[in-house]
Amino acid sequence: MAEDNVIYIGNKPVMSYVLAVVTQFNNGFDEVVIKARGRAISRAVDTAEVVKNKFMPGVEIKDIKIGTESIVGEGGDKANVSSMEITMKAKSS
Amino acid sequence: MAEDNVIYIGNKPVMSYVLAVVTQFNNGFDEVVIKARGRAISRAVDTAEVVKNKFMPGVEIKDIKIGTESIVGEGGDKANVSSMEITMKAKSS
Repeated sequence: MAEDNVIYIGNKPVMSYVLAVVTQFNNGFDEVVIKARGRAISRAVDTAEVVKNKFMPGVEIKDIKIGTESIVGEGGDKANVSSMEITMKAKSS
Repeated sequence: MAEDNVIYIGNKPVMSYVLAVVTQFNNGFDEVVIKARGRAISRAVDTAEVVKNKFMPGVEIKDIKIGTESIVGEGGDKANVSSMEITMKAKSS
């Protein structure tokens, strides 16, 4: 099953991800999960806040999780990086 | 009442804030709140993860909140910035 309702935050401008999240809700998803690692985490928070405050007042933040992921580089070197998952949900009216 | 159990994340290295959080728990606080705004948010997550995974396995993340704060500059200009609060708590043994 494809995870179409997951938006991965990278280095694009925040509005790109805001548009992606809004599109998924408009496509009929009841929940959209925003995932980010490392420095993109602050952009994930920006994305969630802009969606909620400027575009979709009917959407709320259901859950926020943080964690640590181990990343193995091409040379086999390992590094730990923080990760974040924000679950947004359409409010039941 | 002073909010001694609040650690504000700025631009210092993550380990400075890790040390501050660990110190507050060792001072007897049952909960420590990590607060950050803007780009420091990813550092706040790093701080919480390092405290939990490397230094204090007896501490858990109790709550994570995100929000938006309005900042007024010296010239009276306003800007919105995302904010985050991570509440860490000593596990009841």
